[in-house]
Amino acid sequence: MNIEKLQQLYKEKTLTPREYMKQIKENIEAHAENPIWIYVLSESELEPYLAKLESCKVESLPLYGIPFAIKDNIDLEGVATTAACEEYSYIAEKSAYVVQKLIEAGAIPVGKTNLDQFATGLVGTRSPYGACQNSIDPKYISGGSSSGSAVSIALDMAIFSLGTDTAGSGRVPAAFNNLVGLKPSKGVLSTSGVVPACRSLDCVSIFAKTTEDTQKVFDVAASFDAEDPYSRPMPVIEKNVPSSFRFAIPKEDQLKFFGDSEAEALYRKAVKTFEEMGGTAVEIDFSPMLEAANLLYYGPWVAERYVAVKEMIETMPERLIDVTRTIIESGKTKSAEDYFNAEYKIKAYKRQGDLLMKEIDFALTPTTGTIYTIEEVNADPIQLNTNLGYYTNFMNLLDFSAYAVPAGFRENGLPFGVTLFADAFEDRKLMELGESYIQKASHGK
Amino acid sequence: MNIEKLQQLYKEKTLTPREYMKQIKENIEAHAENPIWIYVLSESELEPYLAKLESCKVESLPLYGIPFAIKDNIDLEGVATTAACEEYSYIAEKSAYVVQKLIEAGAIPVGKTNLDQFATGLVGTRSPYGACQNSIDPKYISGGSSSGSAVSIALDMAIFSLGTDTAGSGRVPAAFNNLVGLKPSKGVLSTSGVVPACRSLDCVSIFAKTTEDTQKVFDVAASFDAEDPYSRPMPVIEKNVPSSFRFAIPKEDQLKFFGDSEAEALYRKAVKTFEEMGGTAVEIDFSPMLEAANLLYYGPWVAERYVAVKEMIETMPERLIDVTRTIIESGKTKSAEDYFNAEYKIKAYKRQGDLLMKEIDFALTPTTGTIYTIEEVNADPIQLNTNLGYYTNFMNLLDFSAYAVPAGFRENGLPFGVTLFADAFEDRKLMELGESYIQKASHGK
Repeated sequence: MNIEKLQQLYKEKTLTPREYMKQIKENIEAHAENPIWIYVLSESELEPYLAKLESCKVESLPLYGIPFAIKDNIDLEGVATTAACEEYSYIAEKSAYVVQKLIEAGAIPVGKTNLDQFATGLVGTRSPYGACQNSIDPKYISGGSSSGSAVSIALDMAIFSLGTDTAGSGRVPAAFNNLVGLKPSKGVLSTSGVVPACRSLDCVSIFAKTTEDTQKVFDVAASFDAEDPYSRPMPVIEKNVPSSFRFAIPKEDQLKFFGDSEAEALYRKAVKTFEEMGGTAVEIDFSPMLEAANLLYYGPWVAERYVAVKEMIETMPERLIDVTRTIIESGKTKSAEDYFNAEYKIKAYKRQGDLLMKEIDFALTPTTGTIYTIEEVNADPIQLNTNLGYYTNFMNLLDFSAYAVPAGFRENGLPFGVTLFADAFEDRKLMELGESYIQKASHGK
Repeated sequence: MNIEKLQQLYKEKTLTPREYMKQIKENIEAHAENPIWIYVLSESELEPYLAKLESCKVESLPLYGIPFAIKDNIDLEGVATTAACEEYSYIAEKSAYVVQKLIEAGAIPVGKTNLDQFATGLVGTRSPYGACQNSIDPKYISGGSSSGSAVSIALDMAIFSLGTDTAGSGRVPAAFNNLVGLKPSKGVLSTSGVVPACRSLDCVSIFAKTTEDTQKVFDVAASFDAEDPYSRPMPVIEKNVPSSFRFAIPKEDQLKFFGDSEAEALYRKAVKTFEEMGGTAVEIDFSPMLEAANLLYYGPWVAERYVAVKEMIETMPERLIDVTRTIIESGKTKSAEDYFNAEYKIKAYKRQGDLLMKEIDFALTPTTGTIYTIEEVNADPIQLNTNLGYYTNFMNLLDFSAYAVPAGFRENGLPFGVTLFADAFEDRKLMELGESYIQKASHGK
C-alpha cells in the first residue's frame, strides 16, 4: 500500500479511512507480542480525525486519510509523550509542529511508537517497554532509536512514520527493515514539540516504503517554524539532479563491515549500480567524517542529553535503564572548554568535508556495516551500538542531508541498506537519486 | 590625509611612500609618551615593502603606498605578536591572511599596536605596555581592546588600521577617537593568524577616518579563506540601500547613558538626523540583544578565552595583568551544560532579533552610553568596562554586522559615536548609510 493507491481507493469509495484504520488496528493486534507501540489511539481518540476527513474531499488534502506512526518522543495532542521512560512522561498539550502540519494535511495519527529511551541508541533494545524486534527476523534488532516507527511501517501498520535522527536513528532502522529513511537537513523539519536528545543536532526523520511517499510527506512537513530557534527554511533554489554525476566512496581501509562479508558484497554491488546509472565513483578520504563521528558520543554533545533530562536523572536515576543512564551521566563531566575544543575540531572537519563535497554530487556509504541479534547487543551494548554509528554519527555534526535506501538482502533474508548524503538542503536531490537507484537495482533483479 | 589624496600625491610624484613613511615615523616619535605602539617597524624591516612599491605603478595596486597599523594580536611576518603579554609572544612565521591581502594590495605595515591584553576589555587600560591615552584628551581612555589601532589613526600615524572585535573592540575605540569603525560580518575577514579571544566570535575590524577609505580596505580584506574554518564568503547579492528606510531604536527605558546627558542629547540628535535623511525611527524592544550581551562575559564564551591562553595562564599566571587573569580564569569553571543552556538562549534571542530586523533596514544605538577617564576605570575596572559594552556585546553572538560612526562632540571636546547594525553580510549597506549620515550631519554644522 502507498499514498497514491490508498487515496485512489478512497476516491473510488472502495475503502474509507475508517475501514482502513480498522484493518490497521487488527494488524497491530496481530503483532502484539512485538513491543512496536507504546500507545495506540483508542477509537474515541481517532474519531475527531476520521470525522474531519468525512467532511472533506480526498482531493482537498495531500495526505488525506494516510495513517502515520509517531515516535514517542514527539508530541501528539492529548496523548502521553514518554520518550520510553514512564516516569518522564507528560500529556502533550498540543501536537508537535510537524505532527500538526501532517494532521492538517489529512494524515491520521495511529499511535506512539517504541524507541531507545530518550532517543539514545541505534539498537532498539534500550527500552523499558521491551526490545523492538526486527520486522523480518525477530531474533535480530530493529535498529534504533526510532525502532517502532520503522517496524510499524515494515509491518503495514501505517503508511509513513516520524522518527528522530540525531546520530543515525532515522537511518539505521530503515536499513534493518528494508525501508527508505530520510534524515532531512537540520532545521528543515521543526523540532518544536520534540523531546530533545542533542537539541542543537536533532532532526525529525521520515520512514516510508517508497521515495514517492517520502517526498509527499516531506513536502508537507518541511515548513519553517518561527517558534523553533533551530528551524531553517529550505532555500528557494535547490540543486538539480545532474544527468551524469560523481559520487564519493570511502577509501578501502575506511570501509568497515565488522566481518559481515555479505554486507560488503551488497555495498560493492550498490556502488556498481550507481556506476551503471552513469555515476563515477571517486574514492575520497573520509577522515573528517570519521573523526567527527567519534566526537558525538565521546565529545561534549552528550552534555545536551544531560541537559535534556537533568531533572529526571538527578531525582530518579534508577528510572533510566542502566546503559542510557551511564551514557547520559557522562555529559555532566564535560566542560565548556571541552565544548569549544570540539567545536573548533568540527568546524575544521566541516571545512574539509565541504571541500570534498565540492568535487562530487553526493557520497555513498553503507548505512551500517552489519546487523546484530538482540542477544549480541545485550551482551555488549555500548561497543556494538558504536559500530552501528560508524557511517551515521557525523551527519548532523557536519550538517549534511542524508537518505537511507534499501540495497538488497543477505542469504538469511535480512536487508542491507546504503545511505546517500550531500550538503544541507539537498534533501530532494538525494531522494531523486535514491529513487533512480532503487528503480535500477530492482530492474536488475 | 586619505587614500585618494595620498595616492594622488604619489601619482604626481609630489611625495613617495618612502618620504611619507618618514613623516609618519617622526609623528610616532613625537607621541612616544603615549603607549600607542608595541612595536614599530625598523627602516630595514620597511625596506622590502618600499622596494616592492618602487617597482610598480600607483595605479596597479588598490592600496598602493597606504600605511596601516596592525593590532598586536594579528600576525605580521617576521615580527613578534605579543597580544600585550610579552611572555606569550612569538615571532610570526607568516602574516595573517588579511594582513597578507592588504600588503599584496600595496599597503605598508607601520607596526603593531597596543591593546587590552589578549583583547579582553573595552577600555584600553589593561596592558602591561601602559594605558593607551585618548587621542583628544590624554586623561581619558582610548577605548579598547583595539586602543592603539584607533589612536594611531586619530593621530595620523597610518591611514587605516586593523583591530579585532569580539565584544566591541572595533567600535568603542572608534567612538572615543572620532573615527569610523567597521565590525564586519563574522567570517568575512579571515581570522587566520589572529590570536583568538573567543574564536567562534572573533572578527577582524577596520578603523579609518572616512567611509571611503574603509570601503577600499574592506574590498581588499573581505576574501574567503579556506584555511579558516570560520571564514564565510560575502554573498554574491547584497542588500541595497533603500531610498526611504525604517530604523530601529531601543525603547526609552532601554537607553542607558550612565548619567552622561551630553551623550544622550547627541544620540537624540543623531536619530533626528537619520529622520531628516528620510528615515522612520521605530522604537523596538531590545531585550533579546541586551539579554544576549549579558551572556558574553558572564556566560560560557569566556571559556574560549581560557582555551586560547590555557598554557600561559596555567604555567605563569602572574604574567597576566590581574583583571584579565580574573576574567579569563572564570572560563575554567564553565561546564558544557552551561554552554548548551546559553546556546539555546542565544538561538532564541537570535530568532527574536531576526524577526525584529525584518521590520527595519538597520538599528541605531549609541556606540557607548558614556566615556570614562583612565583614573575612573582604574578604580572600577570591571563594572565600567561592562557599562561600555552595553550596546556592543551582543553583536557577534547574534551575528550582526555593525558600523560605528562619529556623531558629534561633548563640550569638553570628547567625541560621541553611534552604531548602525543589521543582519550579517549587510556591511556595505551599513557603510553607505553611515556615510550618508556623516555627510548630512556635517552639512548641518
